[in-house]
Amino acid sequence: MLRKILVVGAGKSTSYLLDYFIEHAEKENIHLAIGDINPDGVPKYLHDHPACTIFRFDVLDDDQRKKSIHDSDIVVSMLPAHFHILVAKECIASGKHLVTASYVSEEIKALHAKAKEKGLVFMNEVGLDPGIDHMSAMQIIDRIRSQGGKMLLFESFTGGLVAPESDTNLWNYKFTWNPRNVVLAGQGGAAKFIQEGTYKYIPYHKLFRRTEFFTIEGYGKFEGYANRDSLDYRKAYGLEDALTLYRGTMRRVGFSKAWNMFVQLGMTDDSYTIENSEGMSYREFVNLFLPYSPTDSVELKLRYYLKIDQDDIMWEKLLELNLFDAKKIISLKNATPAQILQKILEDSWTLEDTDKDMIVMYHKFGYELLGKKRQIDANMVVLGENRLHTAMAKTVGLPVAIATLLILNKKIKEPGVQIPIDKLVYQPILTELKNYGIHFKENEVPYLGYNPNSVAS
Amino acid sequence: MLRKILVVGAGKSTSYLLDYFIEHAEKENIHLAIGDINPDGVPKYLHDHPACTIFRFDVLDDDQRKKSIHDSDIVVSMLPAHFHILVAKECIASGKHLVTASYVSEEIKALHAKAKEKGLVFMNEVGLDPGIDHMSAMQIIDRIRSQGGKMLLFESFTGGLVAPESDTNLWNYKFTWNPRNVVLAGQGGAAKFIQEGTYKYIPYHKLFRRTEFFTIEGYGKFEGYANRDSLDYRKAYGLEDALTLYRGTMRRVGFSKAWNMFVQLGMTDDSYTIENSEGMSYREFVNLFLPYSPTDSVELKLRYYLKIDQDDIMWEKLLELNLFDAKKIISLKNATPAQILQKILEDSWTLEDTDKDMIVMYHKFGYELLGKKRQIDANMVVLGENRLHTAMAKTVGLPVAIATLLILNKKIKEPGVQIPIDKLVYQPILTELKNYGIHFKENEVPYLGYNPNSVAS
Repeated sequence: MLRKILVVGAGKSTSYLLDYFIEHAEKENIHLAIGDINPDGVPKYLHDHPACTIFRFDVLDDDQRKKSIHDSDIVVSMLPAHFHILVAKECIASGKHLVTASYVSEEIKALHAKAKEKGLVFMNEVGLDPGIDHMSAMQIIDRIRSQGGKMLLFESFTGGLVAPESDTNLWNYKFTWNPRNVVLAGQGGAAKFIQEGTYKYIPYHKLFRRTEFFTIEGYGKFEGYANRDSLDYRKAYGLEDALTLYRGTMRRVGFSKAWNMFVQLGMTDDSYTIENSEGMSYREFVNLFLPYSPTDSVELKLRYYLKIDQDDIMWEKLLELNLFDAKKIISLKNATPAQILQKILEDSWTLEDTDKDMIVMYHKFGYELLGKKRQIDANMVVLGENRLHTAMAKTVGLPVAIATLLILNKKIKEPGVQIPIDKLVYQPILTELKNYGIHFKENEVPYLGYNPNSVAS
Repeated sequence: MLRKILVVGAGKSTSYLLDYFIEHAEKENIHLAIGDINPDGVPKYLHDHPACTIFRFDVLDDDQRKKSIHDSDIVVSMLPAHFHILVAKECIASGKHLVTASYVSEEIKALHAKAKEKGLVFMNEVGLDPGIDHMSAMQIIDRIRSQGGKMLLFESFTGGLVAPESDTNLWNYKFTWNPRNVVLAGQGGAAKFIQEGTYKYIPYHKLFRRTEFFTIEGYGKFEGYANRDSLDYRKAYGLEDALTLYRGTMRRVGFSKAWNMFVQLGMTDDSYTIENSEGMSYREFVNLFLPYSPTDSVELKLRYYLKIDQDDIMWEKLLELNLFDAKKIISLKNATPAQILQKILEDSWTLEDTDKDMIVMYHKFGYELLGKKRQIDANMVVLGENRLHTAMAKTVGLPVAIATLLILNKKIKEPGVQIPIDKLVYQPILTELKNYGIHFKENEVPYLGYNPNSVAS
């Protein structure tokens, strides 16, 4: 019998997701209904494919939402996260499984009992981060535990970066995902984590000065800054007793120090709008954040304010962005500093057609086994093919697609609202991801931790 | 006929306010009803005074609120600001005037038409800051305008400080008002002002590094940091065309640079609670904000993190607060960093019985008259008598009391929700304040502005 998968939201990030279904359509007897607010944006080969129906889908249209979900066997929502709840409620009413790559919201969590009662799998956080990070970490943590090991330390970093061959600017960075999220990264509260049993809190304005470094064989050196709340993961991963728990974002070394200049100036603030932003030049924008002077140049004021030497590479990084250009105009009405900064960065950091992106994930597991402290380092590197077939789209979309087919085929069947941390869930997904080149390299290394000799300070 | 004044909220800051009414009770034929949640806190001489009735008042008790207001001729609310609306609505219903020292909230503003219709004066922002700042500034601005002058610049700074004779610590500061407000000062958004026609925005983490300096004859040098939104005052003061508008808070020179250490560390954050704060030592609290190390001391880590030399006065300021004491315990459950910092500071910055406080206000007016740029500097210094009869209580309470009597005597009669920026209001209040030693010294000085020669950068 033909099985119907409904995918709502078919933006650029869904290329691999849709291709995976198409590839399996015949063998798995699948029909794919793809609903998007802008169906013309879906590539032509999908419009032409016999296993596909593409239609304009407006999630706010109650009748259409109801009907589309009713006509399907399983629903994949790749819509912006706040729309998931509309889809999820209809899935409960219609009795359909649901798969998303987004964080479980409180609203979605509240549907757990109903989903369970109806035997529905509501799988969330099954993309890259969250997603592959959960699965790959739990696979190694479960293995360590099954050997009798006791977890001492877990650190995890993920970065969406440019591939080495496309790494052509001084920042070693281009936008490979939503630029707005990059500009706002780290805001909304202090970063919280735990190191050797000591709680640590970093305010936003210090976040990019408290980086850690690591080397990935074949790819060189990276840095990581802390994500907002690493403590949230203690319970999900069963790491309540671990002495160190730290999750972060990866960049090439030097990015954070340079990004901190924007933070210090106040350019990443998204909480207020600038008066008269529309006709303002990039230079005038910079000057908003510097003390007034009737004579000193914007350049000198900024260097003095941030204490940068004129031959410092930090300074070169700012120049590369044309930040002091008096002719480039912002052209955004009532914009926040963060929106204006995003626009300036997009001038320089947008991927070229031939540019390739790169996803890097790095886990560090410290544990004690048979009285000895040990450490496993694991890393995953995925390279994109081009500006559309990105490593980001691949690593977000494939686990979603794989999970969907596994649920459809009743290989994943435990009902309820969940994330992929159960062995029965992550094992088959990781196995299939390996066939697509998405896998981790593991190294047993000497235990380092932060305090290998238990020295007290 | 006996006139009844109802004062609700009789905390420490109301000593001068109540004394003013008592002093005028006989001549003005006043009876004073003083309602407070803790009536025992009101001084004995007021309990014994024939013109006073003191009673337990709970603003949340609807019947009591209604009855008390109904029985009065005018109401003074010195309650925490968010309670004013309950009092104000009852004043509308009962047809009574209302006086407060607080900022006009949106809810209070919404009562304007009703108050006006009923002929009721709802006078707000008639304390120190807001209050004396409005009145003294508008007096000079109105005078400049009446002479045909055009306002170019207005800057205003207020500080609640310690009197020189009580200035006994390295910070040149003690708490003379609500400590919580001091710890949270400047938070909640970037500071916004305008200098020489150029908008300027300062993020919180740079606020205390962008100070201005000024000298007050007989009292030495002070510094000022920007208040949150100076632009709000453009309309109220009729300064839409002024090139410079800047309001700020005054401290002794060096305070802001030292305070910035707490900001940088993240200790002023009030948005999250620290795990296990209760049994933590001051030293452990500091260490929460520093990188982990198995060997380095908290002291060295802090000096390195904030780039302070060991012989820097900044370092001495931290030592003076016993910040690195491993035996002093926080003893606050589930406290935010800001609450813990407040507690540590209260150990050192609480006024002694004999300590005197000091209020300093400083205005700068730049204007053009007959083709010439001119400047007036005005300042007010008020010294407290002791820990209870503070300059703060005097400068907040007296203008409230004076305004109340003027309204009662129909000297101020324009109805509606208002602040004291009309000449008919501020003139009689300022005249009476002078009798109590609260007045401004004015100096005509050469125009400085920020760009006296109109040099372009």
